[in-house]
Amino acid sequence: MALIVQKYGGSSVATVPRIEHVARKAAATRSAGNDIVVVLSAMKGETDRLLALAYEVSHSQCPAPRELDMLLSTGEQVTIALLTMALERLGVAARCYTGAQVRILTDSSHSKARILDIDEEHLVEDLKLGRIVVVAGFQGVDETGAITTLGRGGSDTTAVALAAALGAGECQIFTDVDGVYTTDPRVVPTARRLDRITFEEMLEMASLGSKVLQIRAVEFAGKYQVPLRVLSSFEEGPGTLITYEVEGMEEPLISSIAFNRDEAKLTILGVPDRPGIAAQILGPVSAANINVDMIVQNISKEGLTDFTFTVHRSEYERALELTQKHAQELGAREVFGDTDIVKLSLVGVGMRSHAAVASRMFTALADEGINIQMISTSEIKISVVVDEKYLELGTRALHRAFDLDDKDGRRVKVEGAEVG
Amino acid sequence: MALIVQKYGGSSVATVPRIEHVARKAAATRSAGNDIVVVLSAMKGETDRLLALAYEVSHSQCPAPRELDMLLSTGEQVTIALLTMALERLGVAARCYTGAQVRILTDSSHSKARILDIDEEHLVEDLKLGRIVVVAGFQGVDETGAITTLGRGGSDTTAVALAAALGAGECQIFTDVDGVYTTDPRVVPTARRLDRITFEEMLEMASLGSKVLQIRAVEFAGKYQVPLRVLSSFEEGPGTLITYEVEGMEEPLISSIAFNRDEAKLTILGVPDRPGIAAQILGPVSAANINVDMIVQNISKEGLTDFTFTVHRSEYERALELTQKHAQELGAREVFGDTDIVKLSLVGVGMRSHAAVASRMFTALADEGINIQMISTSEIKISVVVDEKYLELGTRALHRAFDLDDKDGRRVKVEGAEVG
Repeated sequence: MALIVQKYGGSSVATVPRIEHVARKAAATRSAGNDIVVVLSAMKGETDRLLALAYEVSHSQCPAPRELDMLLSTGEQVTIALLTMALERLGVAARCYTGAQVRILTDSSHSKARILDIDEEHLVEDLKLGRIVVVAGFQGVDETGAITTLGRGGSDTTAVALAAALGAGECQIFTDVDGVYTTDPRVVPTARRLDRITFEEMLEMASLGSKVLQIRAVEFAGKYQVPLRVLSSFEEGPGTLITYEVEGMEEPLISSIAFNRDEAKLTILGVPDRPGIAAQILGPVSAANINVDMIVQNISKEGLTDFTFTVHRSEYERALELTQKHAQELGAREVFGDTDIVKLSLVGVGMRSHAAVASRMFTALADEGINIQMISTSEIKISVVVDEKYLELGTRALHRAFDLDDKDGRRVKVEGAEVG
Repeated sequence: MALIVQKYGGSSVATVPRIEHVARKAAATRSAGNDIVVVLSAMKGETDRLLALAYEVSHSQCPAPRELDMLLSTGEQVTIALLTMALERLGVAARCYTGAQVRILTDSSHSKARILDIDEEHLVEDLKLGRIVVVAGFQGVDETGAITTLGRGGSDTTAVALAAALGAGECQIFTDVDGVYTTDPRVVPTARRLDRITFEEMLEMASLGSKVLQIRAVEFAGKYQVPLRVLSSFEEGPGTLITYEVEGMEEPLISSIAFNRDEAKLTILGVPDRPGIAAQILGPVSAANINVDMIVQNISKEGLTDFTFTVHRSEYERALELTQKHAQELGAREVFGDTDIVKLSLVGVGMRSHAAVASRMFTALADEGINIQMISTSEIKISVVVDEKYLELGTRALHRAFDLDDKDGRRVKVEGAEVG
């Protein structure tokens, strides 16, 4: 008898018939002899409806965050009540709780609160009585009793945190995709669903622009070693298991190809190369709260160096203006930028011990005539920036070069992943 | 500086512009130097939308009451968040609380819970800080932490209970009518708004089929002597003050004419008149949980008596069947019923000391050729049952006979009331 935490997203509970479908799935898992905790999001569209009301009453100003959390938390309260009714109609004992009722204690950062503690006592009692426990995702309560929310996608975090607190055997995230893929199937039709991927790889993929799971949920799962599984609400199938590395587990070389076209590039040419110059260049940008992603500095020539970094495209104009103003003080020759770029990344724990990965990557891109503008590496990731027009061509070339294609009848050596 | 509790119903908060209108009204009362607690209902239509979801998921069975309360309580949570945003946009400090957050402690009778206690401490602190306090009506929490609701119209009860707990100077109920009327203005176009009415009169009127205020709210207000005022959300005006009798206050003879066409009449002819016969006749009916309203027994003739009582029209068929079955055992001659009846009532604390009221009432009806089928009296009320076709004619005749008509330039002696 295992304890399983199941989380269903907004499309899985978008209508009453879908909520009844979720009830039947949870009841079946219960009948198979498992204890079940179900975490729900709001019905699809409900959060946007409530947000529209909040913006209307705030005259398009930012709504007060404390009241916004009070408002938005009603969305999940509706779905947990309806699912519990559906379970009871099936003759399955169930109890539902809001975040405040469980007592999912968070800090007071409204709209992006962090979970501090979970009072699992009542839930354990309900489970002992054979009840399915239904919990509102996305929400908690601070020490003063004010309702807080965990930010978009926060229901994943709720599910993982409950799984950790209750020592669950598995945390299952039901979505509208049937698992994690080697890359975006819309770009590479031969992309394959992965049976398994590590937390580290999933984290690299998530931060590279994937949308299957919230990054914080994956971090949380990795920290508490909660096995996470991504499955489809609508189709049967094993999904993808996200887990820690087990000794003896065959290490795949590369698990996935990720891409991100949300970035823009800024280059400062001919800066005097002296200690502390990088900090001086980036100082005004980070002071303005602009996130910098990749940073590349070329070797110095005649006492001058070139410096390139990327920011989110929405912050490009502001970053360019700040850097241009600042460049004169630094004595730089020229500042220019480019928004037509895409970042392609290889992700895989296997590359740690395989130095040849980088050269295979660069060769595959060169064979297609794709010029690499920037390179950045981490232990389990290599990212390159190329012209945006090469997104599809480059992704397909890399997917093929690392044998990620789904070929019937062929036993592929590597497992890998990306997200739809 | 007085403390005023204001309650706004569903039509008053049906849209964002109306919520902003409520914010301006509350802010104006605050600016006038009062402390304000605002109690809100759900947006008009929202409770019905949620109920429809609950019935859909329950396949038209009765939804589980515990989960239904969880579901319905979201309605007020939405409006309190939106009103607080609107107040803050006006630059007015405000805080909102659900029933559970205030801690409006109730018993565990889901969907019709009774308030046991209110923890007013936080609210008093907020008021001291100059904040407007916004509280979700209709809802509370039981000792186990489960959300409860007080039943339809329960927001009135919340407002009165808060006013009592906080020792408020006045509890103002904003609705879509501008006060309490001498009778239904749709039946008698000359009906007048009353400036003032007593709790007792209001109670008699409420139980006679009026809909302006929930009966429990009036009882509560009477018990704790909280002055209640019914006003319009949409028009300026003093409304109607519902208050306890003050010594020296001029006692009106009759305050209002009420009518109720939801009843049906059952008559048992020729029952042997012996002690305990009334209990024997009504036993099976009350055992079946059917509410009996008026009961009349005529004097005995040759050891036989006639017995008549009224029940709600929806329970007439069941009551008739039970009584017919039982009548044979009792040795009654005949049982018959009539659903085409209406009950007309005079209400007024003044009639206590005026024995002539009844005869003036009967004369007024006789002058119109209206036959009285049943009569029943209490200290401040006289009710008669007549043929339903006489509803308008009888109500207008009584309204005129007791000088309740609104006549410009004429100083009317009596004040009276009924409800729109």
